[in-house]
Amino acid sequence: MRDFSRDTSALALNTATLGHNLDGHGAGWSPEQVIDACAERGFGGIVFWRREIGTRAVQIGELVRAAGMQVVGLCRTPYLTGREAGSDAEVTASIDMAAALGAPVLTIVTGGTEPGSKGLEDSRKRLAERIAQHLDHARACNVKLAMEPLNPMFGGNRTCLFAARDALGVCEMIGDAQVGLAVDVYHVWWDTTLPETLARAPGRILGYHLCDWLENTSHMLLDRGMMGDGVADLKAIRAAVEAAGYAGPCEVEIFSAADWWQRPPDEVLDTIVDRFQSVC
Amino acid sequence: MRDFSRDTSALALNTATLGHNLDGHGAGWSPEQVIDACAERGFGGIVFWRREIGTRAVQIGELVRAAGMQVVGLCRTPYLTGREAGSDAEVTASIDMAAALGAPVLTIVTGGTEPGSKGLEDSRKRLAERIAQHLDHARACNVKLAMEPLNPMFGGNRTCLFAARDALGVCEMIGDAQVGLAVDVYHVWWDTTLPETLARAPGRILGYHLCDWLENTSHMLLDRGMMGDGVADLKAIRAAVEAAGYAGPCEVEIFSAADWWQRPPDEVLDTIVDRFQSVC
Repeated sequence: MRDFSRDTSALALNTATLGHNLDGHGAGWSPEQVIDACAERGFGGIVFWRREIGTRAVQIGELVRAAGMQVVGLCRTPYLTGREAGSDAEVTASIDMAAALGAPVLTIVTGGTEPGSKGLEDSRKRLAERIAQHLDHARACNVKLAMEPLNPMFGGNRTCLFAARDALGVCEMIGDAQVGLAVDVYHVWWDTTLPETLARAPGRILGYHLCDWLENTSHMLLDRGMMGDGVADLKAIRAAVEAAGYAGPCEVEIFSAADWWQRPPDEVLDTIVDRFQSVC
Repeated sequence: MRDFSRDTSALALNTATLGHNLDGHGAGWSPEQVIDACAERGFGGIVFWRREIGTRAVQIGELVRAAGMQVVGLCRTPYLTGREAGSDAEVTASIDMAAALGAPVLTIVTGGTEPGSKGLEDSRKRLAERIAQHLDHARACNVKLAMEPLNPMFGGNRTCLFAARDALGVCEMIGDAQVGLAVDVYHVWWDTTLPETLARAPGRILGYHLCDWLENTSHMLLDRGMMGDGVADLKAIRAAVEAAGYAGPCEVEIFSAADWWQRPPDEVLDTIVDRFQSVC
């Protein structure tokens, strides 16, 4: 297991942690300010959201690399299943944006259950079909697609994948190395079968997301905890991820409307570095 | 698989479905009114909550049986783990109340993670220890203890069991036939490994709870759906439960503050009977 106590090169910031800097929440920092603040603190990379990038993908990617960091990923495709599924053109556009940024990974939050269906089988088949249609383009763009299973509370309208094993099952249906999964502490901390699932997934893990599960979670979406403030066994989860061969970035993604999004971004970033070195 | 299309003898009402009749929500029906209304419609049984029973356990049990039904269960022990864990005396009192009612099953919602712990191992060990301490008394009272795993959104302060496999694991730690698990659609519908887990649990299933998972669930606790209105594959889940040997009551438990709790209880009960015979 990697030792992060004096090394932040694997630390990445998901910009949502600062309240989605460009959408009017939180700090209102520009991408340039985020890049400078992360570079100063020795972050290894940044993950952006599409809404923050607009038409500046190439420029922002260059700024990140000029600051000595990597664009680690882009959030995310439109939903691929369910009532709010996006179009193929929108999927292609998200892949193109990741490529223009130089992001090696594009995250997929699948979307909900297919209209009129019961259970999950139909939705997962549809998911596999839709992803498969975009793999050649993703491959040509050097962009891998990472399905992120979500905590089961997000079933119905946000996801049809609730555990790493579900995402791995869809990977196996597709059978292509261009697709894998992202492991997010918030979504998987409760799953004590995670190590055995990930042991079956060598090479499939495309991302590892850090935060914590607060003992008294007050909001499904927007009350994630800072690493160390919750009940997740962060070191055990990372051990399972790394035992499965993952040696990539650790991306801090904390949606926290009432707490961390209310604090000065510099304080948030300083805390992240401290916690990354001490409890992750 | 049992055919319920013309048979409601396996149908049971969890009184929470009427807004907890005695606590000021919803209808304000007395236990007597609930008993009469269920008996008229051919329900086979009722599940009560401790707060509704007070000192009338023996009397209420007799009323239910005089109306041709069974007391199917009692909700529930105090929490056994976590910051809000109840005392041993309170556990004993809940077992005594179940015995006085003539309820063969007492439900356990475990409580949250043990203070100061990370992950779930410590909490589950503590849970097994606490349950084991009460088994002789439960046996003497003819009351079985049913651990109910909850949807992972309830991690932290309500439960340390998130899937049937977790509850089965604690059963195996305890190793006593007096303890088993309750399977609730709301909590397990997303778990496509449920059939294989339950196949390892013959005799361990002590209850089956019906409701539905709404596509757009708006509240973690209080927005459960009526059977047929959501995305759960109810027949597939019951098939898995029955394939594991369960032939007991199907208990309708719908917490629905904004919808079903606002409707007249007669309408709720009529709808339950209709849906039980058509979609469950």
